[in-house]
Amino acid sequence: MTDRVDAGTAEELADRVESGDLRLYELDDHADADTAAAARRLVVERDSGAELETTGEYAFPAEQAAGSNIENMIGAAQIPMGVAGPVEIDGGAFEGETYLPLATTEGALLASVNRGLSVIDDAGGATARVTKRGMTRAPVFRTSGIAESQALAEWVRENTDQLREAAESTTSHGKLLDVTPYVVGDNVFLRFRYDTADAMGMNMVTIATGEACDVIEGETDASLVALSGNLCTDKKPAAINAVEGRGRSVTAEATLPREFVEETLKTTPEAIAEVNTRKNLIGSAKAGSLGFNAQVANVVAAMYLATGQDAAQVVEGSNGIVSVEAREDGLYAAVSLASIEVGTVGGGTKLPTQAEGLDVLGIRGGGDPAGSNADALAECVATGALAGELSLLSALASRNLSSAHAELGR
Amino acid sequence: MTDRVDAGTAEELADRVESGDLRLYELDDHADADTAAAARRLVVERDSGAELETTGEYAFPAEQAAGSNIENMIGAAQIPMGVAGPVEIDGGAFEGETYLPLATTEGALLASVNRGLSVIDDAGGATARVTKRGMTRAPVFRTSGIAESQALAEWVRENTDQLREAAESTTSHGKLLDVTPYVVGDNVFLRFRYDTADAMGMNMVTIATGEACDVIEGETDASLVALSGNLCTDKKPAAINAVEGRGRSVTAEATLPREFVEETLKTTPEAIAEVNTRKNLIGSAKAGSLGFNAQVANVVAAMYLATGQDAAQVVEGSNGIVSVEAREDGLYAAVSLASIEVGTVGGGTKLPTQAEGLDVLGIRGGGDPAGSNADALAECVATGALAGELSLLSALASRNLSSAHAELGR
Amino acid sequence: MTDRVDAGTAEELADRVESGDLRLYELDDHADADTAAAARRLVVERDSGAELETTGEYAFPAEQAAGSNIENMIGAAQIPMGVAGPVEIDGGAFEGETYLPLATTEGALLASVNRGLSVIDDAGGATARVTKRGMTRAPVFRTSGIAESQALAEWVRENTDQLREAAESTTSHGKLLDVTPYVVGDNVFLRFRYDTADAMGMNMVTIATGEACDVIEGETDASLVALSGNLCTDKKPAAINAVEGRGRSVTAEATLPREFVEETLKTTPEAIAEVNTRKNLIGSAKAGSLGFNAQVANVVAAMYLATGQDAAQVVEGSNGIVSVEAREDGLYAAVSLASIEVGTVGGGTKLPTQAEGLDVLGIRGGGDPAGSNADALAECVATGALAGELSLLSALASRNLSSAHAELGR
Amino acid sequence: MTDRVDAGTAEELADRVESGDLRLYELDDHADADTAAAARRLVVERDSGAELETTGEYAFPAEQAAGSNIENMIGAAQIPMGVAGPVEIDGGAFEGETYLPLATTEGALLASVNRGLSVIDDAGGATARVTKRGMTRAPVFRTSGIAESQALAEWVRENTDQLREAAESTTSHGKLLDVTPYVVGDNVFLRFRYDTADAMGMNMVTIATGEACDVIEGETDASLVALSGNLCTDKKPAAINAVEGRGRSVTAEATLPREFVEETLKTTPEAIAEVNTRKNLIGSAKAGSLGFNAQVANVVAAMYLATGQDAAQVVEGSNGIVSVEAREDGLYAAVSLASIEVGTVGGGTKLPTQAEGLDVLGIRGGGDPAGSNADALAECVATGALAGELSLLSALASRNLSSAHAELGR
Repeated sequence: MTDRVDAGTAEELADRVESGDLRLYELDDHADADTAAAARRLVVERDSGAELETTGEYAFPAEQAAGSNIENMIGAAQIPMGVAGPVEIDGGAFEGETYLPLATTEGALLASVNRGLSVIDDAGGATARVTKRGMTRAPVFRTSGIAESQALAEWVRENTDQLREAAESTTSHGKLLDVTPYVVGDNVFLRFRYDTADAMGMNMVTIATGEACDVIEGETDASLVALSGNLCTDKKPAAINAVEGRGRSVTAEATLPREFVEETLKTTPEAIAEVNTRKNLIGSAKAGSLGFNAQVANVVAAMYLATGQDAAQVVEGSNGIVSVEAREDGLYAAVSLASIEVGTVGGGTKLPTQAEGLDVLGIRGGGDPAGSNADALAECVATGALAGELSLLSALASRNLSSAHAELGR
Repeated sequence: MTDRVDAGTAEELADRVESGDLRLYELDDHADADTAAAARRLVVERDSGAELETTGEYAFPAEQAAGSNIENMIGAAQIPMGVAGPVEIDGGAFEGETYLPLATTEGALLASVNRGLSVIDDAGGATARVTKRGMTRAPVFRTSGIAESQALAEWVRENTDQLREAAESTTSHGKLLDVTPYVVGDNVFLRFRYDTADAMGMNMVTIATGEACDVIEGETDASLVALSGNLCTDKKPAAINAVEGRGRSVTAEATLPREFVEETLKTTPEAIAEVNTRKNLIGSAKAGSLGFNAQVANVVAAMYLATGQDAAQVVEGSNGIVSVEAREDGLYAAVSLASIEVGTVGGGTKLPTQAEGLDVLGIRGGGDPAGSNADALAECVATGALAGELSLLSALASRNLSSAHAELGR
Repeated sequence: MTDRVDAGTAEELADRVESGDLRLYELDDHADADTAAAARRLVVERDSGAELETTGEYAFPAEQAAGSNIENMIGAAQIPMGVAGPVEIDGGAFEGETYLPLATTEGALLASVNRGLSVIDDAGGATARVTKRGMTRAPVFRTSGIAESQALAEWVRENTDQLREAAESTTSHGKLLDVTPYVVGDNVFLRFRYDTADAMGMNMVTIATGEACDVIEGETDASLVALSGNLCTDKKPAAINAVEGRGRSVTAEATLPREFVEETLKTTPEAIAEVNTRKNLIGSAKAGSLGFNAQVANVVAAMYLATGQDAAQVVEGSNGIVSVEAREDGLYAAVSLASIEVGTVGGGTKLPTQAEGLDVLGIRGGGDPAGSNADALAECVATGALAGELSLLSALASRNLSSAHAELGR
Repeated sequence: MTDRVDAGTAEELADRVESGDLRLYELDDHADADTAAAARRLVVERDSGAELETTGEYAFPAEQAAGSNIENMIGAAQIPMGVAGPVEIDGGAFEGETYLPLATTEGALLASVNRGLSVIDDAGGATARVTKRGMTRAPVFRTSGIAESQALAEWVRENTDQLREAAESTTSHGKLLDVTPYVVGDNVFLRFRYDTADAMGMNMVTIATGEACDVIEGETDASLVALSGNLCTDKKPAAINAVEGRGRSVTAEATLPREFVEETLKTTPEAIAEVNTRKNLIGSAKAGSLGFNAQVANVVAAMYLATGQDAAQVVEGSNGIVSVEAREDGLYAAVSLASIEVGTVGGGTKLPTQAEGLDVLGIRGGGDPAGSNADALAECVATGALAGELSLLSALASRNLSSAHAELGR
């Protein structure tokens, strides 16, 4: 991108920042986005002694990101991307064979997922389904006390249509599904749940809920304290998401013939089931965990990074339960993820490498109003997570976790 | 990197993969890493119809990542990186003024952190301290029953030195701090906790614990079921991490004079305290959450990506509690993060853009055995998180969350 | 009750049990309930060397309990009962002044609640409201896999009326409110929620749900694994109850003038608010707790015992959040209990001392179909809990916890 | 007890209360405990219209309870008590065959436990072990900020001996085991853990910790906010107890031959294992539960009531994990309870019916300093819980939960 930078201007702007004449975030007003980024690199380099050369070698015009994906841009972090698969997925929305794109800096992860997908594919592929949908935002209101709190909860139950009208006036894609009140003393939390089609939808539902809050403040005596009252719950490890779901609740499953488990995974269905029970179920129970899995977060993080999702939503992406059953003829395994918040439009999906990641799956952009592209993405993530579990559980069952790391890892 | 690719070889290898002659992961044996990645791109492009041009424009030799950070590499995901600050940090390990590097695709985040750091810096900076250290790995053993489980727990308490000797024989940096047994029927989980100096240390402690497990299996009748029994707990939202900590437990705090709150943040200490109580404390309580904060995960994710940390560990990075107190002369605010697992050596920190991210902070590489560089990184992350909280809480307190997003966001 | 016992028969029956001719539970078939209990006491006394004289001095005919409240009865445990109050309660269902009955063996508890009620009453009484109702039972079904799981969830959403008809055919009081499906792999949990009027309702909803399960097994391919799948959740500390409620969700609140806090409670609103924040909110947060209160369980347990509720449901009765605000003119305090499962008919409420406990409150027996008696009981429990919190928080704020125990306690 | 009451005095005192001349709690100063209780009954009867006759027919001198177990006593709640068993227990502290005493108002519970104990006994009995001990109290201190918090945590780690000396000066039985600091901003929680021998010990450790807090306030700049900071955690459903234990962590297990499962429990090991996995493990996981069991709380509550334990501690008594394994020759089942807080001296154990309950087990009173009586009680509770699980899981496996209730229940 050096050819997009006006080096002289960058230097001049950097000087002005150092002299106190300009602030970093004001640079976008004085130069194109690439030159502003170059100027910031200069400022930071002079200040810290760092050399930011590679950070500056990003492969897209800065203006694609500046102003929509980032502020104070200096360049890009480059996260190695690979593919695993291919794997056949029989989903409710995704149908066919695909490679899965994953971006990570953790050695052995791709190999692990690849091994899992390979045995799944050999066994005929994974089955996947989205079982619940809905992006949420939960503002908190202050009332004069419990009597008013109760009345507000009642009012909301009876006036959901009015709130829907207000909320949906702000969006052409979002549909308000329901509003659930939660009362704690003089606090009333209202959890608004929306269908956001192919968008992850956080911003959409924040704006829509804001409009509905205006109605509530107009029609009742309650006062809005915060547009998000943490019952949403966004990017925190909260039981409400694990129980009720957020974004997509999605499951992927596979049934592996016994010989595949023995020959490819070098263990037995019974041994895998035992590891799942003692580690994923009992171990997680004893740890006070909301995640009953081995490494779901690894796969969720890597696929989120590769497809432009919000990396912080890996937090609730880890709310997954693995169920495994050793059967006479083989192994049944399923991964159920309660809160996969993904989209194929908006946010990071527009950036070039991330768009290419979605293209690998063939599901970039808005599909139909039913949100089938985002459903499909959730099904792909769940399939990847299933592969990661099968691979790691079988590696543990055959006791080679350390050596796998030693060979493939850092 | 096109100049590092042998295009003819790439095409030929892609053909061989498609013909079934080679598998994707075998390509590294037949060409240099860049050419192998190019061949994989060709395979995936033909298969999916995607064009992976930008993914292929990564700014570092593939061999730097292939074989240590990723397998089946096709290129890199580029995540916009920016800086916020500068901010003065008075830490136990970090001392001085610095910019914070953040990589994200979520608009408005950098601006939010920047606003928070600005008011913190104006108020004299943040104070930060690491209050607990220790990377954990918790294997699970099967016994013949509760009598043997109890005996094993006892044996471990009495033979920790022998386990330490075995564990430490595998590493020059790791020190075994303690081993805590947890008994559930015929399962015994042993949580090994290590000082891993400047390394995040997951791989180090996995290998060391494996060696200790060999001793246990040799000296007792217990059988190892899995080297990780999920009481570690790695990358799952588990109470054990929120309560006992993992990696670094770190707090950043600041005291803002009342006039700064009013003039810069456009609200009052009392209003911020109220939002914190009703949203971060009561809202999180009602949600069954382990995270009592507004957006800690956003900052943790962005700083982890910018500095080469493991993105999946954002899960437990979100275990943070925000405490706020409105005082006569201003606002006291603190963010306490229980489980920040970071390192300044190994893993993704060696990759060029990530190394540059650490250079911005001036803390790349191994410091002293006390792990002061990793401590310093944890203090920087906590300071960033504090800024994100102050900014978002005050934005909510002055009701402009939606409009902030509308202006800066997608 | 000695006059109700046929001593000779008792001795003879005891001999037959010892000789192996009869089993303990068969005694009811060979004598009246009091004599059977006496025979069992003899058997146990001979076996253990214990003297069960006082246990045998229960104050009601054994047949009142045997066969409906207990099997293998030997007598009764006598728990000291006292009263606290009186207190004025302005509830949605309870209106007026009352004493609260509490049964406990823990010294200082009654005194603590009494002190709290006294200051509440002086301040004009408590306000209380039930904000949500519904007793739940959640069977778990096994399906052939995720596709069938999804289909079952869909089928249930579309055929709730049919399930309602079946469920309600078994009960004249219960009304099915809704059925919520939760999918985990090849498991489908269906959380049935009922209005059970004045009954606590566990048995009612178990039978009703059993009938609905028969319909599901008849109409779909799913197989019932267990009539309770633990998402109910009965008598376990589960987030689903804390979040969504079970039985009654109820809040009691009071506003205390500043002088009452200072003169009666010997502290200040600010000091109480600080203890609440640091202990009940932040401390509970750090503990990974679902209960954000000081001693709610003490009051819930004591009032449950005094009024014939199920003592094991104290578990979820402790899911309470205390909110406190220091205001210029005094203190606002509220206790919100998510899952108070109480009834004024059935179960232990029919036993004489427990019935008398309900009579103290004036709410024994079935009221109207709206369940106003059980609502009233929930409001009384919440008021008692509020008193316990105010008393303990203020005692802590004035540092006299130990000495209070030392004086009043054991 | 009517013969212990001075009826004339009672009437006179009741009149004085009604006239406002005396308060309820002052009656103990004007009459013996039985007469004071009678006077209170009169007051409450006049006020509420209730008749408290049976409540007044308690079988022990009121002075045994008034002043140590209750204040404002009016009588006693009578809870039906029965026995289940006998069962052979091979424990670390309890060795032999015993009946278990249970007090409850919930029909079918005793029968359920009895059925479970019967099959356990037939199979040779249960094995039980206490695997961890320690009663805790965790005060919270306020510091000037994180630097002081860190210093305080350090100071405590280095001066534990001084704290031990202070703490142990207040008790002849309690031994301070360790003190663990937890830091959240300017809050420092110190979890003191004690060996309390045969006492449950809450009061003992509260007083001892209070003494240690005086040392801390004297030697450091920290201020005590509350003697209990909720990290203890007493009577709240908190992960810290489920993970780290409180009181006794105890497991009971049994191995049932296949034919016993089939003939007595009318099901198969495989069916029981399936119910355990789908309900107790996966169902509880999905519910966000800290209890992975079917009805542990039922048994804990009933045995606590029968033996004079604190009914409110049933809350954490429900933190139990059930593990079940179907083996070729039968069924292995274990119940691991993390936080059973019991004692055989002090508290409610001195009351006559409760003392008799302990006598049934043969473990009343203080044993050796090792606390073997309280250990034994914990082992008995765990054995009862195991029986309850086996019985209910097998009932569910053979689908007769409703009908069992219908026959035995209300």
